[in-house]
Amino acid sequence: MNLTRINMKTITLNQAVEFLNTHDNFTILTHTNPDGDTLGSGYALCGALHLLGKRARVVCNEKPSPRFDFLLEAINPDLFGTPADDSPIVTVDVADLDLLGDIKSQYPKIDLCIDHHISNKDYAIHTLLDTKAAACAEIVWELIKALIGEKQLKSASAGSAIAACIYTGVSTDTGCYKYSNTTIKSHTITAEVMGYGFDVNKINYTMFEMKTRERVLLEQQALLGIEYFFAGRCAVIILTAKMLKDIDPEDASNVSALPKQIEGVVAGVVIKEKGEGTFKVSVRTSEPVNAQDVCAILGGGGHLRAAGCTLTGDLDSVKQTVLNEIEKQLN
Amino acid sequence: MNLTRINMKTITLNQAVEFLNTHDNFTILTHTNPDGDTLGSGYALCGALHLLGKRARVVCNEKPSPRFDFLLEAINPDLFGTPADDSPIVTVDVADLDLLGDIKSQYPKIDLCIDHHISNKDYAIHTLLDTKAAACAEIVWELIKALIGEKQLKSASAGSAIAACIYTGVSTDTGCYKYSNTTIKSHTITAEVMGYGFDVNKINYTMFEMKTRERVLLEQQALLGIEYFFAGRCAVIILTAKMLKDIDPEDASNVSALPKQIEGVVAGVVIKEKGEGTFKVSVRTSEPVNAQDVCAILGGGGHLRAAGCTLTGDLDSVKQTVLNEIEKQLN
Repeated sequence: MNLTRINMKTITLNQAVEFLNTHDNFTILTHTNPDGDTLGSGYALCGALHLLGKRARVVCNEKPSPRFDFLLEAINPDLFGTPADDSPIVTVDVADLDLLGDIKSQYPKIDLCIDHHISNKDYAIHTLLDTKAAACAEIVWELIKALIGEKQLKSASAGSAIAACIYTGVSTDTGCYKYSNTTIKSHTITAEVMGYGFDVNKINYTMFEMKTRERVLLEQQALLGIEYFFAGRCAVIILTAKMLKDIDPEDASNVSALPKQIEGVVAGVVIKEKGEGTFKVSVRTSEPVNAQDVCAILGGGGHLRAAGCTLTGDLDSVKQTVLNEIEKQLN
Repeated sequence: MNLTRINMKTITLNQAVEFLNTHDNFTILTHTNPDGDTLGSGYALCGALHLLGKRARVVCNEKPSPRFDFLLEAINPDLFGTPADDSPIVTVDVADLDLLGDIKSQYPKIDLCIDHHISNKDYAIHTLLDTKAAACAEIVWELIKALIGEKQLKSASAGSAIAACIYTGVSTDTGCYKYSNTTIKSHTITAEVMGYGFDVNKINYTMFEMKTRERVLLEQQALLGIEYFFAGRCAVIILTAKMLKDIDPEDASNVSALPKQIEGVVAGVVIKEKGEGTFKVSVRTSEPVNAQDVCAILGGGGHLRAAGCTLTGDLDSVKQTVLNEIEKQLN
């Protein structure tokens, strides 16, 4: 445990409930490049605050994908308004202020941070942190239950929409319960929220099944050009600017998982041509390759098993640069 | 509800427990082309019977994929033996005797059938059926708890391996909790069995992440030849005998999910050439197409959203036959 951990201004669930109870007007911030967990957490909390008659709004520095539009059913539009000047700022699933994107400067003081990242930067006045939670939405669910009570939540018309937000957060952050962060509690909470009765199939289809035709075409082209190195321990997929032309960035980002899924592959690399000699490199690994180390040396960063960097040059030299770093770790 | 349903020789969980308690030597049959649910159910039940000191064995007409080898940790090899001539026969996840494959003739009398298929053919003397269960393993889990008790199961050295069998059944039959058959109970049972402490990440990687190189090649070829019908509401993939030559049948079976994943597709069809004018057809659907109805008319069966049949003829006529049935439901 390092100093940052010890010094953290962490509060308990009950203290967070008390904080929310003593204010009436909130701004909830999600992280940039918003995903199911930050949005699900934000809209669930916002909807719960509305149920208590409080004003609250959710703010993100970029427009979320239309796939997430259904999350707005959790809120009460009449209470989703402009906050007072002194209304508290709450962040959800935001480990670092930089992740707020270009709205960061508008929020110099964060009153409450609700997060589950071990890398949380302790930037808020109060932090409700559970690094064992698979999703921030798991923490938000416990908070909402303590804030409102399950009985009142069940009888509220927005109850099932709030539950759907929590489901979206937990299911997306666990890769639909298959990533290694999935816990018993992830399943227990899922069973609980499913009891509120929302269209779980629709969410699953939209989040985990549906692929656009363009995505299918991209996948087919990607698989066609897959290359293996180091006796099959590394697989590389190249996505050219031409292949990516008509593709939603979110569709393209999902392709990053493909090479690492192949049997025997411990380093999966996807190189996306961003145009003008710039390439975005995504690295997914398992033992013994540390994705974070590979990308940090190349000026990027990320997690132990999934990291990225941006490189310039011609495609062959970019590929060789990445392969050289991976080879060092394989030996 | 049709006559077959009304006449079914269904028994209660307690009656099934009594049946298992009054015998000492069992043969448990799985279905052919064995998957995680039939094998997980079979080995979990077998392991539980061993815990009671009874003899039991699991029989399948074909060798399961080595991916499932870990399920054998649930059994006690000393009690996994040749049964007595009059020992009862139990089937798990077998809706129809034909699904036993070429060992069917060896088992003219089935004493107990444990199943979750709505299409169950009522072929056994006793049937423990729960068509609301997402997986047969969910029923087997309730049965094992009633048979042994959670306290004894938790203290048994095979307890966690039996729990891993149940997890494998539930997670694979629900597509890792994303298929529409997933229920609150699927998550509740999963949370329960995860409490027994097995390597859930290893199972998830093997079942849901890892693809063989051959599978990747097959997927690429499959996507290359994808055809759309009825204004993109139906997508068909053909897997020729040549494409399937070096492929593990299970790898090929996973491809069945691909066409249905494409945006706008409500009927996804995969036609596999089995050789000599025989084709195995897999149909996955969403509203308004009933996969079970499509396949039942063509002599097959399955579930509302996933069903299959075997057709003979030339490829074009087989494809047209299936398309005709789907078109009827689209109109």
